[in-house]
Amino acid sequence: MEKKIITISREFGSGGRSVGRMVAENLGIPFYDKELVDQVALESGFAPTFVEEHGEHAPGRSLFSYAFAPQGVPGIMNGMSTADFLWNIQCSVILQLAEKGPCVIVGRNADYILKDREDTLHVYIHADMDYRADRIVRLYGESEKSPETRLKEKDKRRHVNYQHYTGRVWGTAQNYDLCLNSGTVGVEECARIITKIVEDSKKYE
Amino acid sequence: MEKKIITISREFGSGGRSVGRMVAENLGIPFYDKELVDQVALESGFAPTFVEEHGEHAPGRSLFSYAFAPQGVPGIMNGMSTADFLWNIQCSVILQLAEKGPCVIVGRNADYILKDREDTLHVYIHADMDYRADRIVRLYGESEKSPETRLKEKDKRRHVNYQHYTGRVWGTAQNYDLCLNSGTVGVEECARIITKIVEDSKKYE
Repeated sequence: MEKKIITISREFGSGGRSVGRMVAENLGIPFYDKELVDQVALESGFAPTFVEEHGEHAPGRSLFSYAFAPQGVPGIMNGMSTADFLWNIQCSVILQLAEKGPCVIVGRNADYILKDREDTLHVYIHADMDYRADRIVRLYGESEKSPETRLKEKDKRRHVNYQHYTGRVWGTAQNYDLCLNSGTVGVEECARIITKIVEDSKKYE
Repeated sequence: MEKKIITISREFGSGGRSVGRMVAENLGIPFYDKELVDQVALESGFAPTFVEEHGEHAPGRSLFSYAFAPQGVPGIMNGMSTADFLWNIQCSVILQLAEKGPCVIVGRNADYILKDREDTLHVYIHADMDYRADRIVRLYGESEKSPETRLKEKDKRRHVNYQHYTGRVWGTAQNYDLCLNSGTVGVEECARIITKIVEDSKKYE
């Protein structure tokens, strides 16, 4: 079965986004990351920065979870929490993008949303704490919190969000065709392995 | 860091053993599977078939768990259950094999036993139920139980054994450098990917 859609789930700081961009370039197909956020923002009425912050994180449990209906779309959330409302739009946007044609989609639980499409290759990129800590300091600079604390917080939020919306445990090998440790394998080699599998899949059509 | 030891953990029926054998042939290094069982049998006094049956399965919980001290070694089990006794010998044999030099080790929780050796590449091979069911019928023939039942029973026993002795959840991507779905990727391609990563690791020494 030809693999036309590639979903890349990744631990923060593992370089999964770079892997995805390289695969898309190698295959000459669209790469959806920020573009996906922008599309969800457009359809929801929320600001892109708000969608970015809430799209992959734990569902809100505070009093404010229901408070921020976007301007101009009163009543459209139908009593849903902001997180649930965004999740519904995110599902719809991802299903539409996959229908449009071959592409690489990074994050946003696309592995689960597209689990029933057989022409999809699901990839999970992870790495050890030291490798990721070093990488986020190099890319995003220092902050008040230690890189380990930032990573642990992000890991936890993605884990909770994923489990809440999919009922699955984040990082379970069986949910993916490939799981790669970018620290051991190398970001470029990860991209090369994925590209080859997709190209080989075309030969058996 | 050059990767000298390759551990292959695998779901029953996924072809992980074949992947391991191919990698060992490609790299020209020893392949330990049945050989490991024989070594544990020799050191424990148990029959190889007994070690094979109990080495990766759930720790015994029956009245017989403590009953079968091997002939000729009275008292050697020191009050341990048979499963714990075998586990200790298995750990010792695997640590010794890794000390001897480059090799491929299939199963027997070697990923956990060698987790502190940085020159080790840990691989997990899995596949969907349909692919594995088809494969075990082709390789081992039919039996009274359906292939799905046989697979579920084996999966459960390996899962329980792994969790009991390692405290880890079987199939968690973060415990491996690579997790590959042999049904999607193909057994030969799995072997090729692993071989290349090991060969590349030698370049950065």
